[in-house]
This record gives sequence, structure tokens and C-alpha cells, in this order.
Amino acid sequence: MNVGIIGLGLIGGSLGLALKQRGWEGEIKGYDAKEVHGKKALELGIIDNLAGSLEELVEGADIVVVAVPVRAIPDLIVRVSSISREVIITDVGSVKSYILKEIQKRVGNRYIKYVPGHPIAGTEKSGPGAAEADLFEGKRVVLCQRGFREVEEMWETAGAIVEYLDPETHDKIFAAVSHLPHFVAYSLVEAIVMMEEEKDAFFRFVASGFRDFTRIASSDPVMWRDIFLTNKKAILQSLIFFRNALDKLESLIVMEDEEKLEELLRDIKEVRDRVIKGIK
Amino acid sequence: MNVGIIGLGLIGGSLGLALKQRGWEGEIKGYDAKEVHGKKALELGIIDNLAGSLEELVEGADIVVVAVPVRAIPDLIVRVSSISREVIITDVGSVKSYILKEIQKRVGNRYIKYVPGHPIAGTEKSGPGAAEADLFEGKRVVLCQRGFREVEEMWETAGAIVEYLDPETHDKIFAAVSHLPHFVAYSLVEAIVMMEEEKDAFFRFVASGFRDFTRIASSDPVMWRDIFLTNKKAILQSLIFFRNALDKLESLIVMEDEEKLEELLRDIKEVRDRVIKGIK
Repeated sequence: MNVGIIGLGLIGGSLGLALKQRGWEGEIKGYDAKEVHGKKALELGIIDNLAGSLEELVEGADIVVVAVPVRAIPDLIVRVSSISREVIITDVGSVKSYILKEIQKRVGNRYIKYVPGHPIAGTEKSGPGAAEADLFEGKRVVLCQRGFREVEEMWETAGAIVEYLDPETHDKIFAAVSHLPHFVAYSLVEAIVMMEEEKDAFFRFVASGFRDFTRIASSDPVMWRDIFLTNKKAILQSLIFFRNALDKLESLIVMEDEEKLEELLRDIKEVRDRVIKGIK
Repeated sequence: MNVGIIGLGLIGGSLGLALKQRGWEGEIKGYDAKEVHGKKALELGIIDNLAGSLEELVEGADIVVVAVPVRAIPDLIVRVSSISREVIITDVGSVKSYILKEIQKRVGNRYIKYVPGHPIAGTEKSGPGAAEADLFEGKRVVLCQRGFREVEEMWETAGAIVEYLDPETHDKIFAAVSHLPHFVAYSLVEAIVMMEEEKDAFFRFVASGFRDFTRIASSDPVMWRDIFLTNKKAILQSLIFFRNALDKLESLIVMEDEEKLEELLRDIKEVRDRVIKGIK
């Protein structure tokens, strides 16, 4: 089974590296619109061969993985499917309904061998230099289309655990547990920037809690612009809950209700510690 | 120079451990209202001797460090000062104006040898078992009263860098860079809890970004209840900026202003990366 990877950044690069180092049988070919990324990926042993065009990438591939920012995904899927009707196409985009809708806009009901995918893994870094062979080890990969054992096998070889969700449920869940936290982390840094003349003094005293808390605000801006724009509805719905939670905590402070405040903080700590135990 | 530490939790315990392991000359005595904490601290080599009462702790001490939640600090400072007029008293509370105001309420203008202090270090853990000898290594300690070289020396021995701020500036800065992030992290977890029937499915897919982002929501509830209640005004002011930042980001998403959205995310990433470079 030969794999072609479009986009050799953190996720595409880590997938190539994982497959090559964990015994995937078959060629790993890569393609990146940024020439420098492609060369770097070849240099780092992320791919066996670098394709000079999409056509070259698709030729001989059994699976093509599209690993680019969300809004660039639908076009690439449609283009790959018009180069080959046989190849199985999957992607790694953090938003799924948008991609399916955009594909339908372009091809109507014509059948495309496409398995929507989303590996729940990443770091705040980007580019092929950030690729890690064990990035997916023990992590979940959500697929939204059953019946393609080849894609399951690919992710299992990379160390991941495959789960299925429908696209709408996927988008709602990740709006809450991933997109909202990113939205909030970006806003938190921006809030301090908005404190104007005082911000330099403020940033001087930033502690390690702030570093961890805002790590995700250091993620790739284009990737997150796309996620925010394409999962808008679900994110804005999560934001309503978040604003309600802010108001709830604020009102306990304003009312100086020390008993309820302590109880709420204690409950939150318990929930958080319980949830975190389940994550690697 | 003998040091007496009241409260042998994460901060008090780490201070004892740091002084003992980094060549502080003089006895380290400890006292904790929780007997089990005191015994544990003795066992772990955090202190040389355990005092059975405040009087016993203060006897022979040159410096007394009060390392308990903020709202318990003023009483302890006043009690120590009435046991000995000579001993230098300092504390590690995250809020400073409140403590000074409460002391004044209790003793009026009677002079107390008190140096308000705040080490900018910590983890989300608590109790003597969480103490680390290098917790303060290279970290800042803010003091709000100059002229007490003994307190500076104590923190320098522990590996910290001493800086001075007035209490109001201190409280404003830490409302923005520490208290607001905690407020937001607690609210983020609570937002998902408020999503009711869906929350279990949501928490199942929580990724490592969420773990880092909400680490500080796992801090000691009593400590944070006290901080929120005693630095209320500055925290609520920071919250206004945070809500403005949320609105700003939201409106760019609602308007689908992709150019400005990408620019904002890019600017935030740059600020964050620049700020973080300055932190160990």
C-alpha cells in the first residue's frame, strides 16, 4: 500500500515519519506547495520520494492523505479524485461538515472515495521540522466514514486508535474541547495586549502558568483562521456556554459568596483531574 | 539566621527544602495547623524541627515566613508580631493590598516588621509532598518593602531574583497575568460541565492542549477562593479587557473577515512567543 501525503507540515510530516519508522510496507511519497518544505521533508527522512506535482503524487498511490489547512482541503480532494477514481482519499482537517459541504458544492452527488479524518494530536509548532514519529502514539483518530480498512490500518501503524463519529457530532465536540480553548487562549493574550501602556510591565511578570495556558495561542495562524471560519456555528454556540461560566464565577466573586465559590472551584478541580487521568 | 515557616504546603515546603539544600546557615523550623502536614514535612527533610505552637515557632527565629492562603495571612502576621517585636515577618501571598489593609484594621498604625512578599512560582499541586527544592530557581520574588536585606538573602539562597513593586501595582499586574488566567481556566472547564448531557462525550475527546490549558484549574480551591475574593477589584477590571478581547475575536469570525482574523492571530502568536522567550 503506497501512501501519498499532501502537505508536509507538523501532521503530514509526523504521519510520514511514523509510517516509515513503524514498519509500513509501501512507498511514502510527499508533495508540498512550498518547495522548501518538500526538500526538508526528504532530508529529514519523512518521505521516500518527493513528487513535483499532484499528478505525480497520485500516480501509484493507494491512499492519499490531505494534510493542509481546512479551507484548502476540499479543492485538493476534488482534484485528486479527478486524477484517479481508484485512490482512497482521506484528510486530517479539524473540521468535517464544512469539507463535506464544499465537496458536494463542487461535484454534486458524484461518488468520491473520501474518508473524512481527524487525528487528535498536535503541538503548537508547525512545518516539517516539527514532525515527530510518535506524535500519534496512543492518540485517537476520528474517522467519519466506515468501511475503509486501509485507512484504519494506516493510522494503527502510526500508533493511533481509530474511532468513528458522524461529522456534525465531531464538529460539535471539537468546538467545545479544542476550538473554544484556542479561542480563549488567543483572547487571553489579546486582553493583556489591550491593556496598552501597562502591557510591557505585565508581560515581564508572566509566570510559567501563563506559558502553559497560552501555548496553544502559538499555533499556526492560518490553520486556526480556517478552523474558526469553517466551524463558526458550533464554536459560537460553545462560546455562549463559556460566557455563562464566566458570569457564574464572576457573580460569586462580586457577591463574595465564599462558600459557593470554594465549592465551585473544588468541583471544577475534581472534574478536570478526573478528565485528565484519561489522557496520555 | 533562623527561619520559621508557617504553612508547610507547596510554597512553604519548597522554601524549607531550598534553604536546607542550598546552604542556608541557621535552623529551619516549621509549623502547620494540620498536624499531618507538619509530620510529613519533618519526614521529607523540609524542616529541621517542628514547632507545636506559634510561640514555639517564633522563639529563636530571625525571620518568620507566613505561607498560608491569603485570607489567613493578616491574623497570623499580627499574632507573630505580638509574640515578638524583633522578628522580621514576611509572607508569600498572591495579593498584597488586602493584607496590608487587614493588618491596619487590626493594629492601626502600630509598626510591624513586615515585608510583603510574593514568589512568582508554583505548580498546580499542593501539600508538603509537592515541595521541590528548585521551585524558585531563577524565578522572581516580588517584595513590597525595601530595607530588609535578610529577606532578600533568604530568597536569593533559594535561587530567586528579588524585585520591588508597590502593593497596588503588584495586585494589578498579577490580576492580569495570573489571576485572570486562573479565572478563565476554571470557567473553561465549567463551560463544558454546563453542556450537560453531552459533557461525557466531550470530555472523552479532550486532547493534550486541554490538559495544559486547564492545568491551573487544578490548583488549590481554598487558595484561589481567597485570591479571587481579596483581589476582586483588579480581577474584575482585567475581566473587562478579556471580555473585550473575546468580543473582538468573535466579531471577526461572525463577519468572516479572514484577513483581519489571520492578522490578529498572527500578532497574538508573535506577542506570546516573544513574551515566553523571557520566561524560564
